[in-house]
Amino acid sequence: RAARTAPGLDLERAALARRYHAVRARSLALVAPLSPEDCQAQSMPDASPAKWHLAHVTWFFETFVLERFEPGFQPFHPAFRALFNSYYNGVGEPFSRPQRGLLTRPDLAEVLRWRAEVDQRVARLLRHTTRPEALALIELGVQHEQQHQELLLTDIKHLLSINPLHPVYQSAWPLTSVANVPAQWVERPGGLVEIGHAGAGFAFDNESPRHPQWLQPHALMNRPVTHGEWLAFVQDGGYTDPQWWLAAGWDWLRAEGLGAPLYWTLPADGAALPTVFTLHGDMPLDPHTPVTHISYYEADAFARWASASRAEWAGARLPSEAEWEASAAALPVQGNCQDSGALHPMPARAPAAPGALLQMFGDVWEWTTSSYSAYPGYQPAEGAVGEYNGKFMVNQLVLRGGSCATPASHLRASYRNFFPASARWQFSGLRLARSL
Amino acid sequence: RAARTAPGLDLERAALARRYHAVRARSLALVAPLSPEDCQAQSMPDASPAKWHLAHVTWFFETFVLERFEPGFQPFHPAFRALFNSYYNGVGEPFSRPQRGLLTRPDLAEVLRWRAEVDQRVARLLRHTTRPEALALIELGVQHEQQHQELLLTDIKHLLSINPLHPVYQSAWPLTSVANVPAQWVERPGGLVEIGHAGAGFAFDNESPRHPQWLQPHALMNRPVTHGEWLAFVQDGGYTDPQWWLAAGWDWLRAEGLGAPLYWTLPADGAALPTVFTLHGDMPLDPHTPVTHISYYEADAFARWASASRAEWAGARLPSEAEWEASAAALPVQGNCQDSGALHPMPARAPAAPGALLQMFGDVWEWTTSSYSAYPGYQPAEGAVGEYNGKFMVNQLVLRGGSCATPASHLRASYRNFFPASARWQFSGLRLARSL
Amino acid sequence: RAARTAPGLDLERAALARRYHAVRARSLALVAPLSPEDCQAQSMPDASPAKWHLAHVTWFFETFVLERFEPGFQPFHPAFRALFNSYYNGVGEPFSRPQRGLLTRPDLAEVLRWRAEVDQRVARLLRHTTRPEALALIELGVQHEQQHQELLLTDIKHLLSINPLHPVYQSAWPLTSVANVPAQWVERPGGLVEIGHAGAGFAFDNESPRHPQWLQPHALMNRPVTHGEWLAFVQDGGYTDPQWWLAAGWDWLRAEGLGAPLYWTLPADGAALPTVFTLHGDMPLDPHTPVTHISYYEADAFARWASASRAEWAGARLPSEAEWEASAAALPVQGNCQDSGALHPMPARAPAAPGALLQMFGDVWEWTTSSYSAYPGYQPAEGAVGEYNGKFMVNQLVLRGGSCATPASHLRASYRNFFPASARWQFSGLRLARSL
Amino acid sequence: RAARTAPGLDLERAALARRYHAVRARSLALVAPLSPEDCQAQSMPDASPAKWHLAHVTWFFETFVLERFEPGFQPFHPAFRALFNSYYNGVGEPFSRPQRGLLTRPDLAEVLRWRAEVDQRVARLLRHTTRPEALALIELGVQHEQQHQELLLTDIKHLLSINPLHPVYQSAWPLTSVANVPAQWVERPGGLVEIGHAGAGFAFDNESPRHPQWLQPHALMNRPVTHGEWLAFVQDGGYTDPQWWLAAGWDWLRAEGLGAPLYWTLPADGAALPTVFTLHGDMPLDPHTPVTHISYYEADAFARWASASRAEWAGARLPSEAEWEASAAALPVQGNCQDSGALHPMPARAPAAPGALLQMFGDVWEWTTSSYSAYPGYQPAEGAVGEYNGKFMVNQLVLRGGSCATPASHLRASYRNFFPASARWQFSGLRLARSL
Ligand SMILES: [Fe+3]
Ligand SMILES: [Fe+3]
Ligand SMILES: [Fe+3]
Ligand SMILES: [Fe+3]
Repeated sequence: RAARTAPGLDLERAALARRYHAVRARSLALVAPLSPEDCQAQSMPDASPAKWHLAHVTWFFETFVLERFEPGFQPFHPAFRALFNSYYNGVGEPFSRPQRGLLTRPDLAEVLRWRAEVDQRVARLLRHTTRPEALALIELGVQHEQQHQELLLTDIKHLLSINPLHPVYQSAWPLTSVANVPAQWVERPGGLVEIGHAGAGFAFDNESPRHPQWLQPHALMNRPVTHGEWLAFVQDGGYTDPQWWLAAGWDWLRAEGLGAPLYWTLPADGAALPTVFTLHGDMPLDPHTPVTHISYYEADAFARWASASRAEWAGARLPSEAEWEASAAALPVQGNCQDSGALHPMPARAPAAPGALLQMFGDVWEWTTSSYSAYPGYQPAEGAVGEYNGKFMVNQLVLRGGSCATPASHLRASYRNFFPASARWQFSGLRLARSL
Repeated sequence: RAARTAPGLDLERAALARRYHAVRARSLALVAPLSPEDCQAQSMPDASPAKWHLAHVTWFFETFVLERFEPGFQPFHPAFRALFNSYYNGVGEPFSRPQRGLLTRPDLAEVLRWRAEVDQRVARLLRHTTRPEALALIELGVQHEQQHQELLLTDIKHLLSINPLHPVYQSAWPLTSVANVPAQWVERPGGLVEIGHAGAGFAFDNESPRHPQWLQPHALMNRPVTHGEWLAFVQDGGYTDPQWWLAAGWDWLRAEGLGAPLYWTLPADGAALPTVFTLHGDMPLDPHTPVTHISYYEADAFARWASASRAEWAGARLPSEAEWEASAAALPVQGNCQDSGALHPMPARAPAAPGALLQMFGDVWEWTTSSYSAYPGYQPAEGAVGEYNGKFMVNQLVLRGGSCATPASHLRASYRNFFPASARWQFSGLRLARSL
Repeated sequence: RAARTAPGLDLERAALARRYHAVRARSLALVAPLSPEDCQAQSMPDASPAKWHLAHVTWFFETFVLERFEPGFQPFHPAFRALFNSYYNGVGEPFSRPQRGLLTRPDLAEVLRWRAEVDQRVARLLRHTTRPEALALIELGVQHEQQHQELLLTDIKHLLSINPLHPVYQSAWPLTSVANVPAQWVERPGGLVEIGHAGAGFAFDNESPRHPQWLQPHALMNRPVTHGEWLAFVQDGGYTDPQWWLAAGWDWLRAEGLGAPLYWTLPADGAALPTVFTLHGDMPLDPHTPVTHISYYEADAFARWASASRAEWAGARLPSEAEWEASAAALPVQGNCQDSGALHPMPARAPAAPGALLQMFGDVWEWTTSSYSAYPGYQPAEGAVGEYNGKFMVNQLVLRGGSCATPASHLRASYRNFFPASARWQFSGLRLARSL
Repeated sequence: RAARTAPGLDLERAALARRYHAVRARSLALVAPLSPEDCQAQSMPDASPAKWHLAHVTWFFETFVLERFEPGFQPFHPAFRALFNSYYNGVGEPFSRPQRGLLTRPDLAEVLRWRAEVDQRVARLLRHTTRPEALALIELGVQHEQQHQELLLTDIKHLLSINPLHPVYQSAWPLTSVANVPAQWVERPGGLVEIGHAGAGFAFDNESPRHPQWLQPHALMNRPVTHGEWLAFVQDGGYTDPQWWLAAGWDWLRAEGLGAPLYWTLPADGAALPTVFTLHGDMPLDPHTPVTHISYYEADAFARWASASRAEWAGARLPSEAEWEASAAALPVQGNCQDSGALHPMPARAPAAPGALLQMFGDVWEWTTSSYSAYPGYQPAEGAVGEYNGKFMVNQLVLRGGSCATPASHLRASYRNFFPASARWQFSGLRLARSL
């Protein structure tokens, strides 16, 4: 890589500083509707308290940036290094994950003081450092904080859902009713494509190296599956017939006693619409919005049911991540993301042109059939930060496209999200595909 | 029972009102050192958040007193009736016990507002009611709140212990070093005794009816087993030799991987004293204070070891609750209780007279061999409040005498506490006995 | 104890030899209807394979008798000492209990060879030994084998019940229909009684020492609760109303999803009688036979329901073991035991005299309210055999009277059986009592 | 497909009949060393009793062939249809998998009678049927039985390993000591390859359709990793350093407390070789044989350790299934398979030519990085038999090449085996790969 000139470095540092402060401020805005109690509680081992998120992303900057690059580094509190380490064995033994909600000290106020101090120190570093690794790690920390912003929202949603009072996180509800956009297959030829991160701009290590992949001819649906289409699956007995389900999915379904997506309340009277818990409170199911909070097992079962139940959906399955990315790469990264203020998927808008793929970015993460694994030639980053992605490459499925809770500036076509097949508390949905 | 005259009723109401306010104020004093976050968290299913304790004892007054006796009763919040119901099926389905820590709403401030409103309404009722059942249920509510005060302290202790920062609940530490009081057997003849609640004053239903019981000649130790005596058990391999343990205790020990009482940290260097976590922070083990935070399994194992290991302890076992009560009935109800400010067991003071039983009240609850069951002729109270005690009469052991966390005014000789054999987070200890 | 004369010893040895051989032969008769496969399988951790029972009782003689008293002792197979040790830590680490069904070697044939060899060697010892401890331990071994005969039957019943083929253990079915014997209270005065083993004859250590106990006036029902009475409880919603249940019982019931005693199949049509699986195959419920295969939780709930539901049963509860024994001590030890050939409880026969207690021995073990604990002054036997009873004295309830699967010669009034409150696979039933 | 002429059909039927009888006879030969007890027990939920295997493969012929194609079909026993259904929801609710070891009836003798009857009836069908689907399903049943033969061996090995007697399945031990074959990278160019089943001969549905896949340049190791190489990993602390492990693998390792492959006994004295339990009994570890009984987690960790620890192994990883198949397709399907009589992996023999890939077939299944999923355009078979493969396509990894327990005639280059990442009881091993 060519050496950066000093003016280039100055511009880069200034841009990064602006971005750093905007993202850090956004995190605080996200917890503004929450009490110290809300920020304390952890509703399940997979979720973390909001306070923990605020502390952990700060820990990331302190541990991976300040500790390494700040002259005369002293930690804000020596014990926080272990307390807010999520899973980096290279940093030491982390505090027990399922017990994060028991760390009542430091309290929220102290965590906010820690954030403020780290912000000052990172700002100072950003004015003076000439080391590109420092800038790269600050950029990584900013991206990391954006990831945790989404988790903070999904974790808070889960927490509030458990409270019988069903508290409202945010009253605003920007939804205006629209006409349904009919489902349509959009066809793609087969052949050799390249997927993975290319060119400038940030990407995580798991998006590299860019590499060729051979695709067979296929089609993608023009928009995600909607709540209304999912309701037909429920009403057709989809959750009680094993023929649609993977064996592991059927076992999971029965062990958990499930009959609908997470956050649905099925009405006693089958004629009425289900109620859906959202970050804006309980709402009647809107049939035109993308279905969300479904596991991979459910997405996969829906596709089998759809394939067998509707002639126009014959052959329906989930797409592979390569199929998804090959189509998404040509599209602008736009959609209903966290920035829209609607913390819930929105209906598709009528497309400008026939054959357009809608809602590829934002609204709901789209489950793919692709297991999360290393691209050929993948190299994790050096040091403890190399544990960021690589060590999770088993027993997870890739999701693509971002959701209504993802910051828009965090997304790109090559972005790979991943969760176990049973995870439902993310804004996960699906788009159908089929082989031609 | 003779009819109460109006002046007698006035005096009784006034006394109860004073007592009510004192106990309610005490609960608030207990949470004064705690943040909203501290009050939110639940460290294990058996424990409850401090905020939940504050709310639940208020629920008790609202549900069992105001709802029944207040004219034109309206609840503070209709949902709280289910949210803060602990286990009374007669009131409805309670909220899931292991998830109490997830109820971030109402927040602490709202719970305190609820408390204040209920206090006003109970005070008004106490000025006007002429119904003895109302007074009896208010008295029950006051006793109930005292019970929860002790649980609040033991639950907070458990919560803070999990935080690697080991926060201090209360810095004051009134302990002054004293000489050890040697262990001595105090002998008691056999014969027919009466146990159970007698005469005036409050008692729980499980202390009645008073009834005869035949005792064989026996001896009680003059004071509880001390930390120093327990350390000898640990150092003699007590936790690694199955011969001392009940089969269920040995299974429990190995499944949990235990080697010392709860809250001990054994030093890497065997020569040093263990560190003990207390509500006043981490302290070196004090050999002269009563050992505490032991399960029934441990207490029972210690007794077997003691019997086999020291000639002067030959025949050692735990006492029955009847043996304990027969001796305690003659003693004043005095000791190191919550009111002393020392939230930890204190050393025995040299006795005024030989043969005196020391520390029968306060310091540590004493495990007995008696399973918690109904006295002959036992009748639970009418209605939902009848679920208070009776439905727990299986798989629990009786403890007697109160602890350093029990309000002194809450204790009496006939008082029966009860916990499962594996419980350790209460201030539980033991006093040896033997048959003669 | 006075020295035994040689002729007395000869008689004692000869009687014991006869008894030994009869009991050993009985075990073989019990497995005669079983295949090697039936003898291999273990249906749950609490149960053991029939082959294991046959081996373990042999291990008892080899380890506690031959190893100690036989000159030049050599084990049949050195590994069997650990393989067939049930729980005696004093003998060494036993093989994992839940995995007993995985010990396919030795096979049944080899276990039978082992039995035959040990029988020869014990017979030889019985001809020559002059040591009373040897005789006492052989007697203990015989009693031990009788205990395991009952377990063998209940374990096989449980195993066969899991097979959808519901195999029949024994086709013979001696039941003849009889008229119902009406339930009647039999009253007993209060006062001081003595319970525990007295006089000559074998008893387990847990039946001693005999000691006084004060009883309040009470009544016992003349016969156990019947299947018909239990059916009324089921049909009245007994399993769906928490008011009848101990808190731990209600949790257990819901976690297990239970609605009837073990081995019942409730008919789809509520008008029809349930089917009951027995060692003689599936049978329609006989309303006049004592109900069996119920847990303590169920017995206790039935008593509360009965007390509240029928005027003539007001005050119904379970008896204490002292109440039971005080009444049983005067009765002959007779009843429907294993020897009758009916491996199922039988209806009560009309009593010779009014006020007679029927079916106190045999038919069903009767749950008592008494937790299994040490009698005052209890001393376990010396050595590893001291682990026989004492180490189980927690979290279990006492049952009295024996069952249709107990060998008649194994019973006496002071006999204490014990199981956890949730155990149902024994022939457990109940007899109501009440305080007067 | 062109119509088969009658002579062609005759030949095909005769060949299939021979093959049917050979495979059925082989199953009986495999259980010849086992007692009825050995055939009864199930050592873990993932394993099945040998008797169950014998019955289930017979059930397959009865249910999928005879029931559909035999005129006047009557089942051998109507209950067996549910009892021995493994997981085909289309056939009905199968009997509980973890309880297969509790089905003591039918006994082994009856299962063998069932086998004999089904063999006669299939033979008759094979003489007369003109329906190609019947032949296809018989062929599928034969392949199915071969799969279960391997499982029968691995399940018996697991069962015998739990018995402290460590019984020997087969005494013969054909191993002769040989010189080590040094590890060497064999390089392969990148480019478009086709994988999946091609041409004539049987294949499972999951091997189709054959399809193109783009490979990057890479190398495979000439032989699998050996026991000696694995021992170096163990001795270098491989099981105690999280840096080598996937996060899920490290959690698994610690939860299970593992420090070596399944069936190893590490010596107390670090200088001595571990002992390895085999179907031929306990053996000292042979450093030149392929390591086996490792999970995917272990295989993956070994590759990371190898890559970092030895210069010549830099870049080591596991191969993808496409990389493996592209190389294997050119090789003869030969190796140390079940037919060799050595039920344990054997050392590599010195290659005839440099650059040859050794032991690609037989010895040990080789873990790949490829998650088990559908090939593009995959279609499961029609009807219940379509549940054979497709519904397991999640949370499993593909293994390739067969093992010492696989029948040789069952293998081909496109064969896909699959197990969860934690499975160790199969003869699973690994071959290193790297990107160029
Ligand atoms: Fe993170
Ligand atoms: Fe309470
Ligand atoms: Fe035994
Ligand atoms: Fe199968």
